Amino acid sequence: MVERAAGDAQEQVRGMPAQLPYPYLLFLGDATEPAFAKTAFGLRDWIPERCVGEWACAEATVSTGLPRLTPREAHARGARGLVIGVANVGGVIGERWVPLLVEALEAGLDIVSGLHARLADVPPLAAAAARCGRRLIDVRIPPPGIPIATGRKRPGKRLLTVGTDCALGKKYSALAIARAFAARGRAVDFRATGQTGILIAGGGMPMDAVVADFEAGAAEILSPDAAPDHWDVIEGQGSLFHPAYAGVSLGLLHGSQPDVFVVCHHPGRERLLGYPDYPLPSVAETIDLNLRFGRRTNAAIRCGGVCLNTSQLEPRAAHDLLARESARLGLPVADPMRPGHQFERLIDSCLA
Amino acid sequence: MVERAAGDAQEQVRGMPAQLPYPYLLFLGDATEPAFAKTAFGLRDWIPERCVGEWACAEATVSTGLPRLTPREAHARGARGLVIGVANVGGVIGERWVPLLVEALEAGLDIVSGLHARLADVPPLAAAAARCGRRLIDVRIPPPGIPIATGRKRPGKRLLTVGTDCALGKKYSALAIARAFAARGRAVDFRATGQTGILIAGGGMPMDAVVADFEAGAAEILSPDAAPDHWDVIEGQGSLFHPAYAGVSLGLLHGSQPDVFVVCHHPGRERLLGYPDYPLPSVAETIDLNLRFGRRTNAAIRCGGVCLNTSQLEPRAAHDLLARESARLGLPVADPMRPGHQFERLIDSCLA
Repeated sequence: MVERAAGDAQEQVRGMPAQLPYPYLLFLGDATEPAFAKTAFGLRDWIPERCVGEWACAEATVSTGLPRLTPREAHARGARGLVIGVANVGGVIGERWVPLLVEALEAGLDIVSGLHARLADVPPLAAAAARCGRRLIDVRIPPPGIPIATGRKRPGKRLLTVGTDCALGKKYSALAIARAFAARGRAVDFRATGQTGILIAGGGMPMDAVVADFEAGAAEILSPDAAPDHWDVIEGQGSLFHPAYAGVSLGLLHGSQPDVFVVCHHPGRERLLGYPDYPLPSVAETIDLNLRFGRRTNAAIRCGGVCLNTSQLEPRAAHDLLARESARLGLPVADPMRPGHQFERLIDSCLA
Repeated sequence: MVERAAGDAQEQVRGMPAQLPYPYLLFLGDATEPAFAKTAFGLRDWIPERCVGEWACAEATVSTGLPRLTPREAHARGARGLVIGVANVGGVIGERWVPLLVEALEAGLDIVSGLHARLADVPPLAAAAARCGRRLIDVRIPPPGIPIATGRKRPGKRLLTVGTDCALGKKYSALAIARAFAARGRAVDFRATGQTGILIAGGGMPMDAVVADFEAGAAEILSPDAAPDHWDVIEGQGSLFHPAYAGVSLGLLHGSQPDVFVVCHHPGRERLLGYPDYPLPSVAETIDLNLRFGRRTNAAIRCGGVCLNTSQLEPRAAHDLLARESARLGLPVADPMRPGHQFERLIDSCLA
């Protein structure tokens, strides 16, 4: 296994907010499929006060509902950065985007990307940024100096959202839970582990881009020592049952040492997204396996409840499903995007 | 999760042998502790025909037992590369090694390293290599173009060694099993996953240096589609119970899709190496958890037996311990470094 000295990684995990050039203009590229614009939707939903508008190629059909502004108009309304709010398959910078991104740099905006591809590797962007004195900011590059995990139990309380699959609400659930903890007067930090969460929180750790040997160590420094009554609410990644990403999920679980985890699930989804040969695990199996592994670094781990994504249901049907599932599982079950007593019961359980 | 296009990674995994400058002079640095020289011992034990001698700083006390040669003498005996056979804490290139490594370059040897630190990042080495027209080869750099895992079941048979902890014989066990399979006339490849194994095999994948999102994908291309009766015997890494490295182990397990796994354990070790707060899991727990996870990508996975490192015992005591453990677990138990009927029973079981 790799050894490496600890460095200033922890500082960078927490120190990013001051470096991010918000408010933002959200760039939608040439997206015609809302699922590829989840970064833009995440920013609109969770930090609307930092989003002044949206912009896109002429062929895009996706919209966040924010005002459509050119970079020059956005800059006049206070924008300081353009966020690439879309991802295509491959996570690359679309060729058709490049002239528009150059236009944004020329209008005085920095560019922020959570794609895998690096902005500065696109020569016209590197040249325009240098010419205009603007920054190209890639938030998916892990900080240097991430240490190997120590396994040492850290003071403070931690909650991790885990999933039966990818892309079913682990980030939204963690954000909603952190907000509810704050509303109850608890000291709480949301800890982001993916590019959208990092832009929302202003800092975090891009867990899927960390070298495997350092994965649990990266999770450890993401939620450092804290006061005994302080909560870190940590955005989950992937699933222990995922044939490609389970290692990311396990490193995050071990390093997070959660006291409480919340299982996120999309009712009706029967197969892993993009993996039709792989059935989704049940919520009960997911609880069991996360308990079993989580005990290795925190003997007191427990399941606080279940978050279901019921966005496809009418309110009445959603409420009934949540009640049925709660009775079946013997745990609070809520949709974090539907405030009310079901969600408050979940929060009670997490804080119990 | 990161997406990235597949590339020529698979070619590189298999294509390295031709690029490695053996025979080797084994460099022991300033090591005074044999545990830090395991790369040198591994090469001496498994590819003695490619090792012409050893060399070290004056203060070193460790020896492989091979002839002590200067780089010039080694070159005269046919050596074409110097392998850094030691690792210190931090995996860095010792300052005191540098003048000796420069001397090796000047004597006509390429330098091969499996450390985390990159040779070319040491300016005197980069300068000397350029001046002498010699190569600096880092075998712990993953190839570009590693794909995201697909989870697709591949044809061919696979065996993976897994462990209760790090550093207790997963590499030696896999090498011995691969050799035994070959002795029985089976088509077999040893698949290396760490720097020492890669140097022994002449190719492989440095699993602990791969970006987490690509971990299972790296394991998939390490043992590609093969004939139905062909065996890949894959070197394990870490342990599912390790608070720092479990993610590496899980990605390797999922991507390897083993038909058979063999548990490696060091009898008498009660705590994880370097993690005194963490008790070792039992062999039974290790079997159970590897079965549970391994079924996700190969429903037919089974445990072929157990390898115990009994190097600290006399032959009689070792034989008795292996027999007792075999009776207790109901599985073949052998020390792969002690040939005989116990090991042959383990091989029978793996091939059954």
